[in-house]
Amino acid sequence: MIGYPNLKRNKVKEIKVVNNAIKGMSLEKEINESNEYYKQIKKALIYKKPTPIQVVKVDYPKRSGAKISEAYYQIPSTTDYNGIYRKNYIDFEAKETISKSSFPFKNIHLHQIEHLRNVSELGGIAFIMIKFISYNETYLIDALLAEKLYKNSKSISYLKIKEIGILIKEGLTPRLKYLDVVDQIYFKEDLK
Amino acid sequence: MIGYPNLKRNKVKEIKVVNNAIKGMSLEKEINESNEYYKQIKKALIYKKPTPIQVVKVDYPKRSGAKISEAYYQIPSTTDYNGIYRKNYIDFEAKETISKSSFPFKNIHLHQIEHLRNVSELGGIAFIMIKFISYNETYLIDALLAEKLYKNSKSISYLKIKEIGILIKEGLTPRLKYLDVVDQIYFKEDLK
Repeated sequence: MIGYPNLKRNKVKEIKVVNNAIKGMSLEKEINESNEYYKQIKKALIYKKPTPIQVVKVDYPKRSGAKISEAYYQIPSTTDYNGIYRKNYIDFEAKETISKSSFPFKNIHLHQIEHLRNVSELGGIAFIMIKFISYNETYLIDALLAEKLYKNSKSISYLKIKEIGILIKEGLTPRLKYLDVVDQIYFKEDLK
Repeated sequence: MIGYPNLKRNKVKEIKVVNNAIKGMSLEKEINESNEYYKQIKKALIYKKPTPIQVVKVDYPKRSGAKISEAYYQIPSTTDYNGIYRKNYIDFEAKETISKSSFPFKNIHLHQIEHLRNVSELGGIAFIMIKFISYNETYLIDALLAEKLYKNSKSISYLKIKEIGILIKEGLTPRLKYLDVVDQIYFKEDLK
């Protein structure tokens, strides 16, 4: 449960959220491992940003260092991941869903979608990554395509994602070969 | 004092660190305000990363949201700022010093210098920004130049910084015209 905001006391909700947290960590882990591999082969440098936390109270017990004793999770102002690939700026948000039929947009904040559009407008690579846990499939969707749907509906269906997104191939190293998909979408010319 | 790690109980140290914190915030504020301006005029999109915090314990008091009751500051794995400028990835660390004669390198972690070198190697824009509070002067120094000095000495003298760095002009909007210096160093060809 650690690291996941807004958990309520309600037991049912809590269990559901905890399940999401565990599964959420797994996509995060997949991406982090892939990024570590991409870093090692000097292909890209992409990091997950720390979760923003508002610190209210800090204690200094005994001779040890600072201990934060009161703090709250904040809504992130940007996305989870950013970095450099092929000299370009790359920026994305990654989410999972246990739904088999659609991805609920409430999992992505409006200002995160707006941030991704701003990145696109400045010539950066911006997208979202959505994992359907039931199918063990992760799709990459360009941010501007995602934005159009975001504005018009509360969710995006699995079929629509298959239509406008590209399935990310999986392997051992890297776990998620998502930069191959980035090449397909954003560096078409170079692949010819 | 909030937001600054490793403060000790020792009063003298504490006051010193608090002073640094206040002054540190002012450079941070200057950069954040400049970044906000650059964002508004659609020139660049550069953000400060959240401070990494390791959450150990979360409480759920009454009907309100999650309250973090035990957490610790972590050493950042990368730098404070990154983003996109002229389609390029940009990444930097910013520090202040109250010293009039030199900047002590202990304020920058080795792995941060290494991270900046990795960014340079991938074709990104990487530098450090150092503010001398006494002179109210902020210099921009290319990461590879800084790395050479970092490896050979414990500090970099004010005179050396004046020699290898470029003074950032200040104004109202943006407060720190640091992208002008980025143009001078990394986009020389375009300025001709």
